[in-house]
Amino acid sequence: MTDVTSKRRTAVVDTELRRRARRVIPGGMYGHLSANMLPDGYPQFYDRAEGCRVWDVDGNEYIDLMCSFGPVILGHKHPDVERAVAAQQAKGDTMAGPAACMVELAELLVDRVAHADWAMFAKNGSDANTVCLMIARAATGRNTVLAARGAYHGSAPWSTPMLSGVTPADRASVEYYRFNDIESVERAVEQASGDVAAIIVSPYRHDAGFDQESIDPVFARALRALCDRIGAALVLDEVRAGFRLNHGGSWEPIGVKPDLSAWSKAIANGYPIAAVLGSEKYAEGASSIFVTGSFWFEAVPMAASIATITALGEEDAVGSMVQRGRRLRDGIDTQALELGIRVRQTGPVQMPNLTFAGDENFARSRLFCATAIAEGVILHPRHNWFVSAALTDADVDEVLEATDAGLRAVRERFGDS
Amino acid sequence: MTDVTSKRRTAVVDTELRRRARRVIPGGMYGHLSANMLPDGYPQFYDRAEGCRVWDVDGNEYIDLMCSFGPVILGHKHPDVERAVAAQQAKGDTMAGPAACMVELAELLVDRVAHADWAMFAKNGSDANTVCLMIARAATGRNTVLAARGAYHGSAPWSTPMLSGVTPADRASVEYYRFNDIESVERAVEQASGDVAAIIVSPYRHDAGFDQESIDPVFARALRALCDRIGAALVLDEVRAGFRLNHGGSWEPIGVKPDLSAWSKAIANGYPIAAVLGSEKYAEGASSIFVTGSFWFEAVPMAASIATITALGEEDAVGSMVQRGRRLRDGIDTQALELGIRVRQTGPVQMPNLTFAGDENFARSRLFCATAIAEGVILHPRHNWFVSAALTDADVDEVLEATDAGLRAVRERFGDS
Repeated sequence: MTDVTSKRRTAVVDTELRRRARRVIPGGMYGHLSANMLPDGYPQFYDRAEGCRVWDVDGNEYIDLMCSFGPVILGHKHPDVERAVAAQQAKGDTMAGPAACMVELAELLVDRVAHADWAMFAKNGSDANTVCLMIARAATGRNTVLAARGAYHGSAPWSTPMLSGVTPADRASVEYYRFNDIESVERAVEQASGDVAAIIVSPYRHDAGFDQESIDPVFARALRALCDRIGAALVLDEVRAGFRLNHGGSWEPIGVKPDLSAWSKAIANGYPIAAVLGSEKYAEGASSIFVTGSFWFEAVPMAASIATITALGEEDAVGSMVQRGRRLRDGIDTQALELGIRVRQTGPVQMPNLTFAGDENFARSRLFCATAIAEGVILHPRHNWFVSAALTDADVDEVLEATDAGLRAVRERFGDS
Repeated sequence: MTDVTSKRRTAVVDTELRRRARRVIPGGMYGHLSANMLPDGYPQFYDRAEGCRVWDVDGNEYIDLMCSFGPVILGHKHPDVERAVAAQQAKGDTMAGPAACMVELAELLVDRVAHADWAMFAKNGSDANTVCLMIARAATGRNTVLAARGAYHGSAPWSTPMLSGVTPADRASVEYYRFNDIESVERAVEQASGDVAAIIVSPYRHDAGFDQESIDPVFARALRALCDRIGAALVLDEVRAGFRLNHGGSWEPIGVKPDLSAWSKAIANGYPIAAVLGSEKYAEGASSIFVTGSFWFEAVPMAASIATITALGEEDAVGSMVQRGRRLRDGIDTQALELGIRVRQTGPVQMPNLTFAGDENFARSRLFCATAIAEGVILHPRHNWFVSAALTDADVDEVLEATDAGLRAVRERFGDS
């Protein structure tokens, strides 16, 4: 694609790094940052980050509306978090055992998240989800787990969205249901003939490549009742949405408590940590499994997490993200209306998701995002975006200039519908 | 146990933290740092670390011969590594994508490790081993993996040493062989009826709770030939031993190249990163799988890894660790001989492993280590120890005072055999 008029001055360094990467990294990149999945014009390599901004290796500046796919919630290099990190780093990080902040963080999470009586820590969101399932299996003595078809719960073999390298046995203990469809869950329970250790669910449906879908409180309550009836654990996968929807568990506003919840991403503003939270009932199961990692007891990410959770509360970060997310959503809606382009914006405003009507192969989305990147805003054509608390109204207005350019490019190429 | 005369002045803070931990962390702790598994007198929580020393939360100082179970190889807070970390941290860590240092690190590893044509990065050693198996399965279209019975390849459900929370399906694609016993491997191949995607093996046998066992080069060559004959990937799990045995692949001195290798722990001197290295033949398989993590592209651990690998070479860290490890082993042998206590020291001297003859339930080991901790040296009763390059001859002599006290305590309690 060469059809985007770019403000970017240069991609010389990025191009050279890509050339070198292709020689020593399979496919030149892997995972969710795979450049092959992104529109032309996206940088692959970055130089620095500050607040809601990032700079690529060629010095081009962007407003970051992906927030590293979620981890950055207060903005890059939040002063309180960086201060806590520096203080802990001066003492120690990966030591002979954890620092006192491990206990403080566990206490803080138990205090902050209503369903939680205890906490364990890991590194990846995948770790946290997998550990939840292991705990549920240990506690119930059962094997099967029910998951919503198409939901992303990490890239472990039981859950990765692509089947290359996955064996049939990796999925043998997973049955699938439809999000917000309790009858489909009940069918899956029957399918499992009573062998249900856990039902795992995201706070709302945020499958990449689709419109987002809010949780139906009736569905959430029915899941809770079903788990109670059959003696299975209700596992809430908070990895992507945790602390962006609510400064506490995401389902607290609807009054439904999971037994176990998996957290990562935003809980330490970009520092690497994951957490499993659980109710007293599952503490024994949790203490019966052997899970661990060389870096799971690092003190720095734990200190960062304490500072992050504290700042989230002090700054009313959720309120701020909602306000900026609302401004962004309203602005885009107005632009689309004026231009006569049919778009759908779904899900929580602080986790924006935009799709175009009749957008085969994401061609409109890709052009829209390619234009935005050229205008200095990082969005994603297939995945929800992330608002951080560092975004100001002025930043949102700057983003809106880019989305306006993106929408105009779409109309120019595809017409007004 | 109250039978150890302790130099430790106090454990007040540690005791209080343990009390709080039991309320908010299942079992008060989990994984390999579970305090329940350690002798009386061990601190659970640490305050700071520097060089080969750590201080617990009560201010007691120790020589650290566990090195966080391997990650710390140059000593805590090595100046070159800390400088690289500070420089990268000032720019950015978890950004919108990786920094240039991702490519530089991949190039450095490909240059440093003979079998490697490419690199991928993750967070846990478990990640790296699991990704190796996924790549082997993707490349071969087969499912079964052969692993040495009792070998530790991480705490994912397919490999964790305890079965609580593990389903039969999690192990359905794993067959087991005996380390250094090629006939047992051939039997496992027959068992799998030709469906062998990979054979995974550690550079030497370092199963916790046992004497260590060197690799028989004849066995390694036979594994290589067998994998070539049946078209399976030879996967070397370098997570624990990588860069401590050799500044390159651990099997390079015996001239056997794996197809894939899994790395973590020591490659960034305590910063959280794991790596998968592979040969050209497996690059396509590697690029066909979807594996990723929110923190897998962090720049700081990659910068730390580059600085670590560079310093390892410049300082001849392996040579230094071998020299200190040899001094320690000889010293303990002399002490044991003088005291008439039968001990076995096995495996590479820089990864010391000490067992006592007739030591039921590790009672002698536990007393030995409890005495050492009271004398200010962190050892482990069931797991190999780790020498770092920060250890000086004087430090080793200090350790030897503690081991002498430990051996004397064992003789006093158990007699001289």
